[in-house]
Amino acid sequence: MYNPHPTYLMDSFSELSKLGEFGLISKLTQGFSAKHKSTIFGIGDDAAVLGATGESSSVKLVSVDNLTEGTHFLKSYTPLQHLGYKAVSTAVSDIYAMNGVPREVLISLSVSNHYSVEMLELLYSGIQSACEVFQVDLVGGDTTSSKLGLTINVTALGDAEKSELTYRHGSNVNDILIVTGDLGAAYMGWKILDREYHIAKSNPTHEPDLDRYHYLLERQLRPQARKDIVTLLKNANIQPTSMIDISDGLSSEVLHLCKSSELGCKIFEDKIPVDPAVMLSVDEFSIPLSIPILHGGEDYELLFTIKPSDYEKIKEIKELSAIGHMTSERGVAKVILSSGMESTLQAQGWDQLKN
Amino acid sequence: MYNPHPTYLMDSFSELSKLGEFGLISKLTQGFSAKHKSTIFGIGDDAAVLGATGESSSVKLVSVDNLTEGTHFLKSYTPLQHLGYKAVSTAVSDIYAMNGVPREVLISLSVSNHYSVEMLELLYSGIQSACEVFQVDLVGGDTTSSKLGLTINVTALGDAEKSELTYRHGSNVNDILIVTGDLGAAYMGWKILDREYHIAKSNPTHEPDLDRYHYLLERQLRPQARKDIVTLLKNANIQPTSMIDISDGLSSEVLHLCKSSELGCKIFEDKIPVDPAVMLSVDEFSIPLSIPILHGGEDYELLFTIKPSDYEKIKEIKELSAIGHMTSERGVAKVILSSGMESTLQAQGWDQLKN
Repeated sequence: MYNPHPTYLMDSFSELSKLGEFGLISKLTQGFSAKHKSTIFGIGDDAAVLGATGESSSVKLVSVDNLTEGTHFLKSYTPLQHLGYKAVSTAVSDIYAMNGVPREVLISLSVSNHYSVEMLELLYSGIQSACEVFQVDLVGGDTTSSKLGLTINVTALGDAEKSELTYRHGSNVNDILIVTGDLGAAYMGWKILDREYHIAKSNPTHEPDLDRYHYLLERQLRPQARKDIVTLLKNANIQPTSMIDISDGLSSEVLHLCKSSELGCKIFEDKIPVDPAVMLSVDEFSIPLSIPILHGGEDYELLFTIKPSDYEKIKEIKELSAIGHMTSERGVAKVILSSGMESTLQAQGWDQLKN
Repeated sequence: MYNPHPTYLMDSFSELSKLGEFGLISKLTQGFSAKHKSTIFGIGDDAAVLGATGESSSVKLVSVDNLTEGTHFLKSYTPLQHLGYKAVSTAVSDIYAMNGVPREVLISLSVSNHYSVEMLELLYSGIQSACEVFQVDLVGGDTTSSKLGLTINVTALGDAEKSELTYRHGSNVNDILIVTGDLGAAYMGWKILDREYHIAKSNPTHEPDLDRYHYLLERQLRPQARKDIVTLLKNANIQPTSMIDISDGLSSEVLHLCKSSELGCKIFEDKIPVDPAVMLSVDEFSIPLSIPILHGGEDYELLFTIKPSDYEKIKEIKELSAIGHMTSERGVAKVILSSGMESTLQAQGWDQLKN
């Protein structure tokens, strides 16, 4: 929640650009305070945490995400089934990031008359696939007309045991930073789509050969929220000390963890997991590998910390990579580059109201 | 949820218009089925009903509503504080319509760079007022940029006792139809704003005198969800047999109740509560009174049914008006006009994808 998605396409906001999304939210919501004891945690994590009425060992999680045409996707290169799938996947990712299990989604569309019934059926076929994969029930929504384009708004609800809930805060000095899967592919997928989009504009008969970019495009267009990690951690008997999902890029997310835990961290660039397809494509585009893996968003992997004593339990698990550890240097995220040089990490994540 | 709001301004959808919003939703969601026992009621009422994990006498309610610029409001005649207030008010109204108590809201904005930080602060000051009045906590949201205009999406969550939950279905033959407050004022408020908008376009120096329309404008711009009714009914020891909120107009909502309960109804036009300001304004516009009171939307009053034996308990309560009763003639809603003529009610509510 309150996760900006990559903003490939938007014009800069005039005044809003000075604040950025997080600054804006912080400014707009500063006068609000919680009235109910049931509001265990409100704004400021991946999902809000709501206590059940009465005594219960579990809590309800809720989060909401927008996908807006022209900001998060371009109609011309986004298959609508994939878009529907992605909308649900990115929303449930916030529930997984709390170490919870998603249960329900509500889908709201604001849609212009450039979309036909058939197009919306394609979108919903993707939504349905995702509901099957992530085992969530579609329980409601709202459909309204808009003057321009399509905005998909997904509310995701889930459950978590109070004792297993994982916030962005909670990590301690020397806790190990772990990332799931691999990073940077979604960003490179976008680079390819963007290139093809511009080629197609100047040469409408151009037939792109995209097969060899399959993995990168799949990661961009149809990302998979990490449903498996909650179970994997439970089976390994590990309670993460903090967790967040990687929607805006590793640099941005790791700074969120540092800020929330009032700590710093040290990351080793060459420990960040990368798919070979990403390495091939950065050569093709002549960009440094650090751009997609540190700053590229939308991989929807999970980033979490564990106690050092838990490291033995997971070091053989292929899906999990230790990339660094937390330090006491509050707010300072250092990265040891592959060259051996040390650099202080600045969030260059996709704060869409700024870029 | 899935309540279309009035669509004063939009162009007709080409293909979507054939289906209308409810037809579209029904088509898009027909392949979905509930996977979890906790999904007590999904699509098709004012809010979804979710069971708590474990044994509990209460349930969680959730609903979502869009307010889209150009469809639900025109920036030029909508004070942003009021708009923020209205967004929350219309969303919590869905929770009251389940006989529940709203607890939390999440606010998502999709906003163009024509909105300044100061404008969004005004919007949030209205949101905050509404959060105070309706005693709800703002627990999250998402803010994204859009190419055009502003869409506000509000997710409302609430609690209800299982035994007090009120659906759209559940009424029986001869149950009394009750409406709260008065109807038609929000529609007439829009008529006035629309007239002033067109006058101002052709005569920019025009200074409208809107004071005498205060009640109508207030009802349109800053509607009050009926927070008091849940308590009032509880105090009167009445469990409604069915309930819905009046967002699209009485004709549309009463047909929803009939359809959901597999019954018909008979309404007496001269029993529908009307404020004198509405009567004055229909004369001014030379339109029949039946238009605002039967078909005008956005009053956000509640419409519910009670057992005939409960009528004695509430007949002295000023806020509640009996307007008719349920009949066995399935799907047929009759209205006895003030003239004495009988007419079959057709929903002319604001199905925005049609109008």
